[in-house]
Amino acid sequence: MTMKDIKIELTTYKKEKPASDKLGFGQFFTDHMLIIDYKNGKGWHDPRIIPYQPISLDPAAKVFHYGQTVFEGLKAYVTVDKRVLLFRPESNFKRLNASNERLCIPAINEEFALEGLKQLITVDREWIPTEPGTSLYIRPFIIATDPYLGVSSSRSFQFIIIMSPVGSYYKEGIKPVKILVEQNYVRAVAGGTGAAKTGGNYASSLKGQEIASEDGYSQTLWLDGVEKRYVEEVGSMNIFFKMNGTVVTPALNGSILPGITRDSMIQLLKSKNIPIEERRISIDEVIEAYHNGTLEEAFGTGTAAVISPIGELKWQEERIIINNGEIGEVTQMLYDTLTGIQNGSLEDPFSWTIKL
Amino acid sequence: MTMKDIKIELTTYKKEKPASDKLGFGQFFTDHMLIIDYKNGKGWHDPRIIPYQPISLDPAAKVFHYGQTVFEGLKAYVTVDKRVLLFRPESNFKRLNASNERLCIPAINEEFALEGLKQLITVDREWIPTEPGTSLYIRPFIIATDPYLGVSSSRSFQFIIIMSPVGSYYKEGIKPVKILVEQNYVRAVAGGTGAAKTGGNYASSLKGQEIASEDGYSQTLWLDGVEKRYVEEVGSMNIFFKMNGTVVTPALNGSILPGITRDSMIQLLKSKNIPIEERRISIDEVIEAYHNGTLEEAFGTGTAAVISPIGELKWQEERIIINNGEIGEVTQMLYDTLTGIQNGSLEDPFSWTIKL
Ligand SMILES: Cc1ncc(COP(=O)(O)O)c(C=O)c1O
Ligand SMILES: Cc1ncc(COP(=O)(O)O)c(C=O)c1O
Repeated sequence: MTMKDIKIELTTYKKEKPASDKLGFGQFFTDHMLIIDYKNGKGWHDPRIIPYQPISLDPAAKVFHYGQTVFEGLKAYVTVDKRVLLFRPESNFKRLNASNERLCIPAINEEFALEGLKQLITVDREWIPTEPGTSLYIRPFIIATDPYLGVSSSRSFQFIIIMSPVGSYYKEGIKPVKILVEQNYVRAVAGGTGAAKTGGNYASSLKGQEIASEDGYSQTLWLDGVEKRYVEEVGSMNIFFKMNGTVVTPALNGSILPGITRDSMIQLLKSKNIPIEERRISIDEVIEAYHNGTLEEAFGTGTAAVISPIGELKWQEERIIINNGEIGEVTQMLYDTLTGIQNGSLEDPFSWTIKL
Repeated sequence: MTMKDIKIELTTYKKEKPASDKLGFGQFFTDHMLIIDYKNGKGWHDPRIIPYQPISLDPAAKVFHYGQTVFEGLKAYVTVDKRVLLFRPESNFKRLNASNERLCIPAINEEFALEGLKQLITVDREWIPTEPGTSLYIRPFIIATDPYLGVSSSRSFQFIIIMSPVGSYYKEGIKPVKILVEQNYVRAVAGGTGAAKTGGNYASSLKGQEIASEDGYSQTLWLDGVEKRYVEEVGSMNIFFKMNGTVVTPALNGSILPGITRDSMIQLLKSKNIPIEERRISIDEVIEAYHNGTLEEAFGTGTAAVISPIGELKWQEERIIINNGEIGEVTQMLYDTLTGIQNGSLEDPFSWTIKL
């Protein structure tokens, strides 16, 4: 399969583009999508860019029954001088293959997927929004399509990329969020699928989110599934705390998603000589730091929001207010630096961005 | 929504029915399917029986990304005197609603679903195979259809029933299976989704099955996710051991699926005055019983195979041979009794079967 094999069928009907202040997240989609098929014995084949359209599947297709899916999420930005930048896309396709391995899905060719994505973006280039804070969210995903109800790995798959222009997460400035620490439900456990980006983890997390919402909180802080004591993730983000001058984040332990934003933050902190540790963090340690007055900042990291400062944690009956409910200094610096690199307004000493 | 609301559109093209010795499991599907739509604010609506056909969904539909799905599996049988029997269907729709609750999917009306199923079976009655050991496997499932990439519960769903004529699991007599006890991967954990019938659990289990196959074993025995010590399930079945005259099965602990076959076996054992205990069972206890000579029988239970006797367990480097690798007496009795009740050749003192 080479780039020449990608067939391109352009749409005859271009959708109207939504106003940039109406974008939200993942609600609008561009005019085209990329599809590559897989069949046992034949491998990945028939790459094509086609008009964005419904997927038609047999109702027995395994994706509907046994959740054999993986996905990724990354972004493209237009710089003020009209260059199109992709942020660390190789990391996403590499992680997609790590997820594939766990879910018994055949590996994709990472270079080919990236070339296909670049071609898709080129076709839909005018869909990348240009207002500050906006971007093009890219969603590669793989679904099991075999119409067979036996519990076994599918013999056929589809790799698909869809793209959505997304608005600024922080139209009215960065507002810290209130987080509920979940004590009963679990998102993932060592030996499970937590380190993979697969549907089941998100399905499992919906209940915690519902409980948090009912209590007036916007997200869940997940503890580990074994002892329900160690901090894992916050919503669909990795989590960082600044305690007594040192930034700490849970070590990758097999049940946490290895976030690409997380990795970028760690590299940024190191480059700024701010102490950063990856290790186990118990919720007790966080509460104790709060009582000692050494819990200085907390934030989540992920592609969608980049950084989401945490202003309040609720643990059992206690409300932990962090930095007076305001964004911390290091959090703000990390946000400014990373978004600056992403949108091309700052230099990129890490070579994270790729020009289309 | 009442029964009168079910619209029926009959197929104009009836598929050829496969020969009964070619059926296998979940490969062939009947001519029709039942669909009921859900939309926030509107509830479940527009129930319809239509020709079996592909489902067309937006590529952003949540089922493809966040695994918000549940399903059920049950069977219908034709008796020798041509009655059609359903086995405990109310239990399946009740369990579907329990799964819905965990997955933040709106509850279905259980009575209505059963009435809809009966109507669907009536339409496709000639698809129920009649050879001994064959049956009609029924797969109700719900998928999240909202084309929106935010991680949140879908605002729209489809409830669908498809049906598959299935062959005898034991064409050449009941053959005990060889099972590998999994030590690293985990299917489910307390606080997770193990007690719900949702895609993510099965996606998570594929890896263990792959490892077992590579080692010449047909299924995985899953241990608990916390201590990796307590027996949970075997493949997609509940597990029973007979040790020293007493039958034991893991208690329902929140990470095990409450199997309907499991419950039926417990009731059957009680009615026969065979001691039966539901409790925690460590793998060490099983191994010790084997060494003591008191591990007498072992079997899995589930709708697909009814009973699957276990002839060998591999734990670490040890091979545990159970009852000389042959089916045990109690296992055989339970199999004969339950399949007899299901296919109408034995009386049904429990009122488990429902006549169409
Ligand atoms: C569960 C979970 N954790 C963490 C992250 C953050 O990963 P990344 O920084 O690669 O977006 C994501 C994805 O956004 C996620 O879904
Ligand atoms: C994980 C799992 N455990 C146990 C069972 C057995 O349940 P039942 O007896 O209701 O078929 C099933 C379904 O067949 C299952 O998928």
